[in-house]
Amino acid sequence: MIMTDNSFRFTIESQLKGSLARVGTIHTPHGAIQTPAFIVGATNATVKALTPDQVMGVGGQAVLANTYHLMLRPGADIIRSAGGIHKFMNWPGPVFTDSGGFQVFSLGMAYKKGIDLTSHSSKGDAKTAVHTSDQLAVLADDGVRFRSHLDGREIFMTPELSMELQHTIGADIHMAFDELTSPLAGEDYVALAMERTHRWAVRSLTRHKELNREHKKDNLPPQVLFGVVQGGRSENLRKSSAKFLSNLGFDGFGIGGIFEAGEIPNVLNWVNSILPENKPRHLLGMGSQPEDLFMGVEYGTDTFDCVAPTRQARNGTLYTYDGRINIKNSRFKGDFTPLDGSCSCYTCRNFSRAYIHHLFAAKEMLGATLASIHNEFFVVQTLESIRHSVLNGNFRQFKDQFLSRYHS
Amino acid sequence: MIMTDNSFRFTIESQLKGSLARVGTIHTPHGAIQTPAFIVGATNATVKALTPDQVMGVGGQAVLANTYHLMLRPGADIIRSAGGIHKFMNWPGPVFTDSGGFQVFSLGMAYKKGIDLTSHSSKGDAKTAVHTSDQLAVLADDGVRFRSHLDGREIFMTPELSMELQHTIGADIHMAFDELTSPLAGEDYVALAMERTHRWAVRSLTRHKELNREHKKDNLPPQVLFGVVQGGRSENLRKSSAKFLSNLGFDGFGIGGIFEAGEIPNVLNWVNSILPENKPRHLLGMGSQPEDLFMGVEYGTDTFDCVAPTRQARNGTLYTYDGRINIKNSRFKGDFTPLDGSCSCYTCRNFSRAYIHHLFAAKEMLGATLASIHNEFFVVQTLESIRHSVLNGNFRQFKDQFLSRYHS
Repeated sequence: MIMTDNSFRFTIESQLKGSLARVGTIHTPHGAIQTPAFIVGATNATVKALTPDQVMGVGGQAVLANTYHLMLRPGADIIRSAGGIHKFMNWPGPVFTDSGGFQVFSLGMAYKKGIDLTSHSSKGDAKTAVHTSDQLAVLADDGVRFRSHLDGREIFMTPELSMELQHTIGADIHMAFDELTSPLAGEDYVALAMERTHRWAVRSLTRHKELNREHKKDNLPPQVLFGVVQGGRSENLRKSSAKFLSNLGFDGFGIGGIFEAGEIPNVLNWVNSILPENKPRHLLGMGSQPEDLFMGVEYGTDTFDCVAPTRQARNGTLYTYDGRINIKNSRFKGDFTPLDGSCSCYTCRNFSRAYIHHLFAAKEMLGATLASIHNEFFVVQTLESIRHSVLNGNFRQFKDQFLSRYHS
Repeated sequence: MIMTDNSFRFTIESQLKGSLARVGTIHTPHGAIQTPAFIVGATNATVKALTPDQVMGVGGQAVLANTYHLMLRPGADIIRSAGGIHKFMNWPGPVFTDSGGFQVFSLGMAYKKGIDLTSHSSKGDAKTAVHTSDQLAVLADDGVRFRSHLDGREIFMTPELSMELQHTIGADIHMAFDELTSPLAGEDYVALAMERTHRWAVRSLTRHKELNREHKKDNLPPQVLFGVVQGGRSENLRKSSAKFLSNLGFDGFGIGGIFEAGEIPNVLNWVNSILPENKPRHLLGMGSQPEDLFMGVEYGTDTFDCVAPTRQARNGTLYTYDGRINIKNSRFKGDFTPLDGSCSCYTCRNFSRAYIHHLFAAKEMLGATLASIHNEFFVVQTLESIRHSVLNGNFRQFKDQFLSRYHS
């Protein structure tokens, strides 16, 4: 385990003139993250189809695991018994966990009826449980009663429980428990949900600090908590959420909610102009398109996570600097060039499109592995290149160049 | 590419007194194989779930790909256009291909009706096509007409075509085209099939030599051909097959047919006492149990191949020095020891049984990869240990020790 420095801190090395973009370093007990950075998705305590060595090989600095998934399987206690998530999955670098909120609201509500994020009642208020006959997550101010999407068993998730689970799992960076609202919810409901998210943020932080004191007694490194900004697509609500959370003493911030890529600049601009400059900001679950990454950095985001690179890789959708290709297309059968001629990942250095096409045609697992290596490398390296462009002061030129080639 | 020596040769470094066991080196244009050795299965030009780096990591010296599978997908011409199978799959070491015979008779006949190796007519003679209404492989002296198990298209496979396909694919070590008989076939039919296999062996060798002359003109390294001994479980037939093939000028021998592990000593003893000592012998498709490997070496086998280690790995069956375990069993949920405490593979050095159990429970692909690394390492290293025991003269002691622990 890399334990060079026991303390969490964020340093900013460079800032792009006339923009919110910055370059920095997040120091954690398990090593540093050079930002802006892509945090590799590791939902089930594994980056899908990749060994930890391969994750390092693509330049991955940190991973993000899901509290909801791990709570259900294998269970947080198993991970603690293993010595924490780093030892369990053999990942020596920094680990983020999300709060489980997103999944409680999407997967928990979706149990046996398909994911449906439109079923929040906009008439619900903070005191009334939102509950319809076919809906298995029951929301109250205390927390959310929901059913496991795996076996249907009932669980009552609270901000306190989320903190306890995250401390038990033992990641470096935790997220406060928040309420996810449907992108179709009305502003009235989004406002109520945001207020609840704020109350939960306070409760999350209180419980987090208690747990860190216990940690200290056990001589374990402290863990840090990011508050999660909500407020949908409303300028008022986003700004009010950013203001409220700024003063609570969080170590950093997550920017949550479901919104379209085109809304990224607005939402981030509102939020990141308010959040304290000296704390890292993580854009939750977005970053599958180069635009997302460029806009995210331009409007002050330090870290990103997204499961799309590996999910799309498993479907044969591969990222190239000239846009996306689907390697299953028969035109690649006899194409002996690499996936991308200017890519230096393990896959592109050693294998042709024809070979990867063959692996997908033959349903060989190596296809998903080589494709995932390539896509993760592409996203991680794109952020690394963006980082250098901010350092060198040519971010806008690099962005225009990159995106015009990508869309040509 | 490793091209240290352009010529094929087999050298014997040590022989175990009073047995057929020996230690040697097979030199090929793509490097040497220290024998006895396990040749890692790479049916579709990929070792299932492993990168070539991972195959080297388990100590794999050479791989075996299947002519039948590659002929159908991606097609031998695609592999030639890629620069041959080594470049296509990015495996720099020696490559074997089988003749396709086994699959023509098992998969080709099985098209749309499930594998059925009992349907050979024992009344068939060399002049009469064996053909029943629901059987899609038609056997004649010229060759076999069969249907692709992928799409049903008709293909006429002959010894000459098998040689052409193998030369086009470009492996180092090829197998003569043979007829596989059902383990339930009567001795009369097995005798007829063996005679046909012998005629096919002569035709295979003739075409192989022509192709090698063309190779030489194109300045390509020569490829070598192994004759395949058949004869079922009959002492007479096996001996007569070994005698016949010994004098034809093959570079080595495959020992074919389907038989039970308990029959290995007899069959190998009959055959390997007759085959020329100075040529390598490959036991086709057997070696999933440690006994097979010990008996195989004891009775004069130099190389083995078997797809069981990766297939069983994908099903969660894992090899340990104390016998097999199924990692999906819930008793491993909280077991933080490695798969095998005395194993030094990547998986055992870095992950616990609990973690691999979790990966299988969550249907995560990394589970199959880590399990395949372990099983291949186990088999490859067992043969490596057997090799050392022959060199050190303590083969029998090592075998007794190994097997008594394995079965305790």
